[in-house]
Amino acid sequence: MTLETIHADNRPHVVIIGAGFGGIWAAKELADQPVRVTLLDKNNYHTFQPLLYQVAAAEIEPEQIGYPVRGILRRMPNVTFTLAAVTAVDLTAQTVTTTQATLAYDYLILATGSVTQFFGTPGAAAHSFSLKTMEEGVRLRNHILTCFERAVHVPPAERRQLLTFVVVGGGPTGVEYAGALSELVYGPLRKDFPELDMADVSIVLLEAAGRVLGGMSESLSAYAARSLHKMKVVVQLEKRVTAVTGTAVTLHDGAQIPTNTVVWVAGVGGEGLARESGIEVLGNGRVSVLPTLQLPQHERVFAIGDLAAFPAADAASGHFLPMVAQVAIQQGIHAAQNIGRHQLGVPLAPFHYWDKGSMATIGRNKAVVDWHGRTFTGFLAWLIWGVIHIMYLIGFRNRIMVMLSWAWRYFTFEQTVRLIMPSSQAAWLAMAPEEVNETSAD
Amino acid sequence: MTLETIHADNRPHVVIIGAGFGGIWAAKELADQPVRVTLLDKNNYHTFQPLLYQVAAAEIEPEQIGYPVRGILRRMPNVTFTLAAVTAVDLTAQTVTTTQATLAYDYLILATGSVTQFFGTPGAAAHSFSLKTMEEGVRLRNHILTCFERAVHVPPAERRQLLTFVVVGGGPTGVEYAGALSELVYGPLRKDFPELDMADVSIVLLEAAGRVLGGMSESLSAYAARSLHKMKVVVQLEKRVTAVTGTAVTLHDGAQIPTNTVVWVAGVGGEGLARESGIEVLGNGRVSVLPTLQLPQHERVFAIGDLAAFPAADAASGHFLPMVAQVAIQQGIHAAQNIGRHQLGVPLAPFHYWDKGSMATIGRNKAVVDWHGRTFTGFLAWLIWGVIHIMYLIGFRNRIMVMLSWAWRYFTFEQTVRLIMPSSQAAWLAMAPEEVNETSAD
Repeated sequence: MTLETIHADNRPHVVIIGAGFGGIWAAKELADQPVRVTLLDKNNYHTFQPLLYQVAAAEIEPEQIGYPVRGILRRMPNVTFTLAAVTAVDLTAQTVTTTQATLAYDYLILATGSVTQFFGTPGAAAHSFSLKTMEEGVRLRNHILTCFERAVHVPPAERRQLLTFVVVGGGPTGVEYAGALSELVYGPLRKDFPELDMADVSIVLLEAAGRVLGGMSESLSAYAARSLHKMKVVVQLEKRVTAVTGTAVTLHDGAQIPTNTVVWVAGVGGEGLARESGIEVLGNGRVSVLPTLQLPQHERVFAIGDLAAFPAADAASGHFLPMVAQVAIQQGIHAAQNIGRHQLGVPLAPFHYWDKGSMATIGRNKAVVDWHGRTFTGFLAWLIWGVIHIMYLIGFRNRIMVMLSWAWRYFTFEQTVRLIMPSSQAAWLAMAPEEVNETSAD
Repeated sequence: MTLETIHADNRPHVVIIGAGFGGIWAAKELADQPVRVTLLDKNNYHTFQPLLYQVAAAEIEPEQIGYPVRGILRRMPNVTFTLAAVTAVDLTAQTVTTTQATLAYDYLILATGSVTQFFGTPGAAAHSFSLKTMEEGVRLRNHILTCFERAVHVPPAERRQLLTFVVVGGGPTGVEYAGALSELVYGPLRKDFPELDMADVSIVLLEAAGRVLGGMSESLSAYAARSLHKMKVVVQLEKRVTAVTGTAVTLHDGAQIPTNTVVWVAGVGGEGLARESGIEVLGNGRVSVLPTLQLPQHERVFAIGDLAAFPAADAASGHFLPMVAQVAIQQGIHAAQNIGRHQLGVPLAPFHYWDKGSMATIGRNKAVVDWHGRTFTGFLAWLIWGVIHIMYLIGFRNRIMVMLSWAWRYFTFEQTVRLIMPSSQAAWLAMAPEEVNETSAD
């Protein structure tokens, strides 16, 4: 089918912004409907975000958790992909403006996801590493490895600063990354750097609340904290970060931790396009949606996934559904089905979240699974975690490659992707320390 | 061993510049000698350059042909690695200055390799893509994919220009890349872009001489040209490029080919450090060496691999050994052994190249092998090529991953790494065409 025939097509035009879990599953569902679909993303690949932290820990290749969007869409002849950044949405004119063109839509699905939130913490945005995009995962991996390379050549105080890694936020991502970092550092990096004394290394996990994994059962929080402690991760609870610079993080009690590495996984908010386009958003940038996932007053516009603020079952407490893949997948399918209902003129159905439980992995044979109050830890939880993540990874080759990477690491204790690549990200090796501090989060 | 004990060590200090084939094999050989060794490289990984073209054709992940240098050195307690760029070599003071420090050496092995040569062709350096480093491989992959994405949205003339890919140089790399590009384009990209008409695509291989693969037997040149023709690659012989811009390549006969993509694999010369340090070099930047691989007048300095201009067996013709991995490996071992001889005070041995033959792969089941005049083509040559490349790939995991990538591609006809990553390299999608042309080779 050529572009011309697609444009001549008079089926309703559905535009989906974002090829994350929500956007892809919505497209899949719309593939069987009498509509034509344009899926927009600024990357030509879908990112499997739940494993990004493993990229940042040199465990897997970034390519293994990316899959070309056009490859996913091949069996969906009514779905077209456009690689473009969306610059504006006009709900009145019913148009989406991109860096390529302006598109008119009959239905719009906003699935732009979330971005890191720094809560206005001074210096945090400029000097921390985030873990939301493939580039951020690779940059953090490169930075960790560069810190070790640089530590070989500097005096002791600076060396300890370079070898102190602070993870801010004790949610699943923070726990998973702190554990993965411990396995990387005390495993292969210890062997790679016989010049360095591992006593100079410190991995710190800061959490503002009274326990890590606050969204799970308390017994799992305790298990995670114990496991991290055994892995030499210093877990500090009830610590709020008040400032970040390129050389230190400051806590609310005035304590300072000298470090060149702050990994900020303390908060996420809705991606900015909706707000910038004048769509009403909550304080954290998420869009309020009706139970049908429609925007209030805009029956042809849906918001799904991380971007959508959808009340949780215990809505009385003011909670919204968590920003996880399962919510996005289920909402993507549901929004697509509601578009079908709207075309048929039948009432739209309210969305109900089927909670498949939450989980996090901490390290080798160590994970936690919380399934409707039933909890699993240790090897069994770790197996469940692995199987489910492989299941939702797109692309059979990626599944095999990731499983092979895991098996390799499991049996050899080696994280093999210890590459500073692209090498421009090691450029600060050549700089004077002052410059380094100014640019370390670039 | 800590840095301090290494520095207090009074064994002779061998500095090796470059962790390519020559440098790594020299280090391995020196691991058993009573010396201490510092290996310097500006990357923290060894690059398996013979497969770089497959990275640029989206066939394999870049990480699969990179291996951490420190991982290679683990079993060599007398070898230290320093990640640094070398800025100068002083043969009189016997020092090497890097971005980290200045090192004094007792023996020096120059193994800095080669860089692309443009022979002063106007615009070639600024507007062509090279294939010497991992970054260049990734950048070319991203560029090809971006050309296809962009072609969807432009008028026909610009579309044909975006879909014309010109490879300059019909040596092994040019032949291999043209073939790999054909398989990428007419395989998965044809399916990925149903909006595009493949008749708008053209892959052109330009060669200045009368045949491709000039270093091999004539029958193999003919086979390669025939194979490429069948794969829709337009092979143009006796064509010299006189100018390159961001939108066209001009030939010596005045013909112009409109294109945004010129892949320049027409020539390589010695890397610049030797020349910049005042070491005498030939016109193409290679260092003349004695039969022992020593520099004339500098008995403690050796040059090996692509950097060294070593007369070939048919030296009367003025030829030097080719810039291939086998020469570098054998010279690396030989230089290390000669350092051992020099310490013992015995005469140094002249280097003799054991030619293991040359080979190139063209595509699925199609390759050429030239082994001392015996030639092999087709499936057998293709198998030999594969086995030998896997053998010299460093790291068991990389071997498995590459074999798996090949097997996957072989059975599914899919090049899966069709990712534009980092996404900044697709930024020109957002630009006006004039800007694009100015920056397309960035």
